Amino acid sequence: MKRSHQAVNAATAEMETAQPSLHLKTYNAETLSAQELKQFIARPRIDFTSILQKVGPIVDAVRDKGDDAVKEYTQMFDKADTPNVCVPIESLPAPELDKATQTAFDVAYNNIRRFHEAQQTETISVETMPGVTCRRLTRPIEAVGIYVPGGTAVLPSSALMLAVPAGVAGCKTIVLATPPRPNGSISAEVLYCARKAGVTHICLAGGAQAVAAMAWGTASCPKVDKILGPGNQYVTAAKMLLSNSEAMIAMDMPAGPSEVLVIADSSAKPDHIAADLLSQAEHGPDSQVVLLALPGTDLGAVQAEVERQCNALPRSEAAASALSHSCIVEVADQAQAARLSNLYAPEHLIVNTRDAESWLGLLQHAGSIFLGPWTPESVGDYASGTNHVLPTYGYARMYSGVSLDSFQKKITVQSLTEEGLRLLGPSVAHMANVEGLEAHKRAVTLRLGLEH
Amino acid sequence: MKRSHQAVNAATAEMETAQPSLHLKTYNAETLSAQELKQFIARPRIDFTSILQKVGPIVDAVRDKGDDAVKEYTQMFDKADTPNVCVPIESLPAPELDKATQTAFDVAYNNIRRFHEAQQTETISVETMPGVTCRRLTRPIEAVGIYVPGGTAVLPSSALMLAVPAGVAGCKTIVLATPPRPNGSISAEVLYCARKAGVTHICLAGGAQAVAAMAWGTASCPKVDKILGPGNQYVTAAKMLLSNSEAMIAMDMPAGPSEVLVIADSSAKPDHIAADLLSQAEHGPDSQVVLLALPGTDLGAVQAEVERQCNALPRSEAAASALSHSCIVEVADQAQAARLSNLYAPEHLIVNTRDAESWLGLLQHAGSIFLGPWTPESVGDYASGTNHVLPTYGYARMYSGVSLDSFQKKITVQSLTEEGLRLLGPSVAHMANVEGLEAHKRAVTLRLGLEH
Repeated sequence: MKRSHQAVNAATAEMETAQPSLHLKTYNAETLSAQELKQFIARPRIDFTSILQKVGPIVDAVRDKGDDAVKEYTQMFDKADTPNVCVPIESLPAPELDKATQTAFDVAYNNIRRFHEAQQTETISVETMPGVTCRRLTRPIEAVGIYVPGGTAVLPSSALMLAVPAGVAGCKTIVLATPPRPNGSISAEVLYCARKAGVTHICLAGGAQAVAAMAWGTASCPKVDKILGPGNQYVTAAKMLLSNSEAMIAMDMPAGPSEVLVIADSSAKPDHIAADLLSQAEHGPDSQVVLLALPGTDLGAVQAEVERQCNALPRSEAAASALSHSCIVEVADQAQAARLSNLYAPEHLIVNTRDAESWLGLLQHAGSIFLGPWTPESVGDYASGTNHVLPTYGYARMYSGVSLDSFQKKITVQSLTEEGLRLLGPSVAHMANVEGLEAHKRAVTLRLGLEH
Repeated sequence: MKRSHQAVNAATAEMETAQPSLHLKTYNAETLSAQELKQFIARPRIDFTSILQKVGPIVDAVRDKGDDAVKEYTQMFDKADTPNVCVPIESLPAPELDKATQTAFDVAYNNIRRFHEAQQTETISVETMPGVTCRRLTRPIEAVGIYVPGGTAVLPSSALMLAVPAGVAGCKTIVLATPPRPNGSISAEVLYCARKAGVTHICLAGGAQAVAAMAWGTASCPKVDKILGPGNQYVTAAKMLLSNSEAMIAMDMPAGPSEVLVIADSSAKPDHIAADLLSQAEHGPDSQVVLLALPGTDLGAVQAEVERQCNALPRSEAAASALSHSCIVEVADQAQAARLSNLYAPEHLIVNTRDAESWLGLLQHAGSIFLGPWTPESVGDYASGTNHVLPTYGYARMYSGVSLDSFQKKITVQSLTEEGLRLLGPSVAHMANVEGLEAHKRAVTLRLGLEH
């Protein structure tokens, strides 16, 4: 069902940024101008310049003054006194959860563990030529820092998503940083998940100061090799700064606002479509949601459900703001929908259509895909087993989400027999000669007795 | 055989930076002070601040003026006129190599291809709970840029190391950038390797301007999603700048000066040890080489061979300069050697000992390992099959070398049946409730008919 009159309205709807509208702008893929297509792919803009300017001095202060600087910032930003910045996890009292909560997190833990254990890579061994054996081994990254956002919400699910693969990988030191509450404690659920997954240290700090403490190391906080996890723009900026600094850390991926793209056809229930769009929109005002609607999707019903459900949400204001820079695009067929989805490269991609499985071969860029009518994004956010730390902002074109690999590195090994070097050596010597690297050549020819 | 008198001489040897000495400083692991240990791990310092200041304007100019800016810089830095910055590879005349050269590169191509093909990952599929299926798919990164340094040496081996896995991964667009010679051409060997491996475009530019052309895209050069490959400090700085910019690119890893750590015992021939140390040292004055010598290693003979062979090298000056900030550490046993090697985390690690295989389990951090008397580093640099683009500078603690994975990304997929959602949904709803994300909960409960 084409609704081309809505495409015409799109331009005027864009003006209404002051008072967020719950009515999603609607375009038609057939009539999208090049400019509209560009706008469709564009994400809410982040200006890192001003953020980096604020984060730089924090990162430097933690390098120079260690725990004292972290405590000052925690007092300033989190209004909390923390006599110890970082503590071994066993020094904290065991958290008590009610039975139902514990069961829910146990279910999530088990599924996440199972899926990440399946990602273990065997040692690869190939005899590339007689007597020339090449192998690839896997080793855990020794010390990792994982950041679990706090603030307005507690996010124990992020603790699981990061700590479980770190534990499966065999990382020796796993520091979990999360901003403390004003009384200096952290949420019982976060602590429960951290203990269960094998976290070794809790860093009671948030923001750039927490990232800096883990990157530089302080008297109380072990220095880590890599920092992973979601976080606000200050956390992201600190990771960027520190991974290009003498702190010598790696990071997972650039983080941006969360987003979902839903592909729906006439078989998808409008209230489910609306609920999926809103479950992304409620993350924050800079989230973005997109609906690609195949012919027969009842867009009137979807719009009505979005409005009805949004008004009932505790976080309706954030969701409404996210909806104001979101849109619907009517698409003619599967090929067109897949093409637009690949152009957008969504973090979360929900395929709520008949024969959802048939889409997989066409989808090239996405963080995580949710197939069929019974797979809302929330199952992956919490407990299906996949990781919810995913590339946003179009980075799904070239980044993978967090996985077991994120906590490991690979070492290659070669071992040649004398026969192997006799076979391969002359080629190596010839190439070294072409490149003018005489000592490279001699390391071969000396061994083969061809010169001395 | 301990030579503790040499440890005493180490401090004075350090002073001789003005006139590089061919005599390697020697320490004893038993008597290493904390300060000496720190110095042992330290790499030659790189100051990126001034480099970034030079590279920033180049990157901006290419963004704003495209091919014209690239041509100007190529004229300025490479003294070459390039009527076209980037051309489809088939538009260049087929290169002609002599038979022996072609055979050598063909051998390397075959081995590299074989080892990287073995790195293909199968789709993972796990039913984490009844009705809850999680999968992980692999997709090529669509467009990649590979940088092959030029200048004083031609490096066709780097073209193979980058283009072969890109081709195996199935990248659609593979742009190879390399600085042109004054007549505007590139080396026949680089072009031969590029064609053979499936490169689609040649970008006739080097340095920051080449990286910027691939990152932003220009009229002649396709925009890429990821840029990989070694390069000088300008290339590295441009990759760092652009991967934190709106160009939206990923990069492989931070690059630094090349390095080797050799572990040797009395079974290792002094001339082989010296040749391996020098094959790293000849890369450039900022390279670093380390020898961990087990008891019985004839260090007098090693030092004499280093001097003799170094003086015979065409690049002896660079090698001598590298030796001036390199050292030997005498170690008591295998455990001590492995501990020091892991602390150093070398890019290349040669284990030239009896029973070399027995070391593997102890080695935690290295880019690539070369096992046994018949495995000089040069075989991995060219043709054993492993990749020679490896983490340096201590980054082997947390980065892997370039591999097939570097040209791919992983997408997770979950698909639930109705039964699956009935089983998992209540846990998801409970956790969403804990985190205060009502819409996440409703996306589940609406589907299960628990609310409307």
